[in-house]
Amino acid sequence: MGAPAPSGTQLAREAQAGSRRALARLLTAVESRSPVAEEALRTLYPAAAGAHLVGVTGPPGGGKSTLVAALVGVAREAGRSVAVLAIDPSSPITGGAILGDRIRMQGHAADRDVFIRSMASRGHLGGLAGTTAESAAVLAACGFELVFIETVGTGQSEVEVASIADTTVVVQAPEMGDEVQALKAGLLEVADLVVVNKSDRPGADRTAMQLRAMLTLGEEVPSAGRPRPKHPAVLLASGLTAAGVTELLAALDHIHRSGVESNGPHAARLARARAQVEGILADRVRGTLWSGGERAGTEALMEQVAAHELDPYAAADRLWRRLEA
Amino acid sequence: MGAPAPSGTQLAREAQAGSRRALARLLTAVESRSPVAEEALRTLYPAAAGAHLVGVTGPPGGGKSTLVAALVGVAREAGRSVAVLAIDPSSPITGGAILGDRIRMQGHAADRDVFIRSMASRGHLGGLAGTTAESAAVLAACGFELVFIETVGTGQSEVEVASIADTTVVVQAPEMGDEVQALKAGLLEVADLVVVNKSDRPGADRTAMQLRAMLTLGEEVPSAGRPRPKHPAVLLASGLTAAGVTELLAALDHIHRSGVESNGPHAARLARARAQVEGILADRVRGTLWSGGERAGTEALMEQVAAHELDPYAAADRLWRRLEA
Repeated sequence: MGAPAPSGTQLAREAQAGSRRALARLLTAVESRSPVAEEALRTLYPAAAGAHLVGVTGPPGGGKSTLVAALVGVAREAGRSVAVLAIDPSSPITGGAILGDRIRMQGHAADRDVFIRSMASRGHLGGLAGTTAESAAVLAACGFELVFIETVGTGQSEVEVASIADTTVVVQAPEMGDEVQALKAGLLEVADLVVVNKSDRPGADRTAMQLRAMLTLGEEVPSAGRPRPKHPAVLLASGLTAAGVTELLAALDHIHRSGVESNGPHAARLARARAQVEGILADRVRGTLWSGGERAGTEALMEQVAAHELDPYAAADRLWRRLEA
Repeated sequence: MGAPAPSGTQLAREAQAGSRRALARLLTAVESRSPVAEEALRTLYPAAAGAHLVGVTGPPGGGKSTLVAALVGVAREAGRSVAVLAIDPSSPITGGAILGDRIRMQGHAADRDVFIRSMASRGHLGGLAGTTAESAAVLAACGFELVFIETVGTGQSEVEVASIADTTVVVQAPEMGDEVQALKAGLLEVADLVVVNKSDRPGADRTAMQLRAMLTLGEEVPSAGRPRPKHPAVLLASGLTAAGVTELLAALDHIHRSGVESNGPHAARLARARAQVEGILADRVRGTLWSGGERAGTEALMEQVAAHELDPYAAADRLWRRLEA
């Protein structure tokens, strides 16, 4: 005999008024792409323009969570409200990472102006980038000035997520293995700022030097990406000791400010818009094909493709005609 | 004054007749989702039912490439034709991993019954899983019996790719760091077989024991996934010395055979079909919205969303009406 489930508009109003419980429910609705989320987002979206979305990515083992926790600490000391979206590549059910990361961050758990959210990266219909952009919009509309989006930077979807942030930080630990080394090239392309974390460890200076050399080389290749400084600065910091973290946050603020002046983050805002709208459309396509009257027909076509009796393009032709009908 | 570009049907015929050049061109067409690929796939698809698609995934540093190279060696000794799709998370332009992995595999480069292909994991419209399934179908139709699909198992898209393989092997090196440990849970869910690679290293037996314990624990949680043995076997192998690799391939063959008998891989075939068809439909939606007459209107809507003048659902509503028109 519980109360009736609140509507999206109601949840949006409560979340904007400061209810953390309403905010958490809204984010769950966004992640499951429920109609409640749609209603709430239609309400909240006009108020969601202000925040600075900072993507924090890099290979596993770089200490991203610890660095984000340190950034949160510095921002809180300056009285700013901060949210963290931690995108967890392991399963929501059996994954151990959620717990581990959150424990490391729990220094801030009791603070009202900090909101930390672990998002599962699997099972997102419509694309992770779209869902993350919507979650960030909810947080921005609820007054968080700084939203950190933390992802493991090794897969396609993680790089897509980086593209929706206003500013992207790539975190690298000193002296990592060969294979991780190889991943850096792709990641560096999305970096607005590179941080060698664990700066107290041996090899940190040398890693920073190597990265600066790599980035200077890369400069010779013209790129059609969004406007950004010729090559990203490489900073040293330690999430553990907080050394260099104040400077890192200042550098992020500086990039954001000069970006706003030069209309730089426009490309990121456009990428966010596109990810959200295309995610919603992909959902509608799927929703139409797999719902009610269409489901049996879609299933039969998929079975024919699975049995190689029909090629996937022919199946797509038939489904496309149904969408248009 | 080159010859006119061959049609998809022509390329398909040449690739099936054994032309490696035609095959390579076809795979490039698939990756860029060109009309040539569509035409070729319509021709090839009926012949693509026979191969065993084996996904090989796991955290970076596990030695997946070396293990796949060893598997290729064992399969070739048995006279089987083998293809490898290596999905590279770094950029096609600046990435160093392609080179590194290929050099490790070059023992097989001159063999006609081995075909190795590096796919970039970024910039795939319509989803990586769909493109990979299509590439595998092309290889299967060209007579490759075994197709290994190698991905770094840390992101959403990599787990999706694993779902399209008939059989999925998760590769783990002994004694890896904490964060990588945390990733394993999500990966283990997709495993049909777990391999502790680098079995000559200290700690390999202990890692295998730990993994067996984790998998036995996981058994208590009921899962709605595809039918598979109660828990995947954990094998020890060394890609470097080839110890245990013959046994590994035999185990893969066994899983495949019993799967075919029990209709097990049906779920994988259905997942492949769905990934391909939904990828094609997503492409058509995007193609319609961003082509010719629609482009300016779509762009204007995205700009309004980026400026927070319009919410993404309202934009999707308008675009959806245009798709139906």
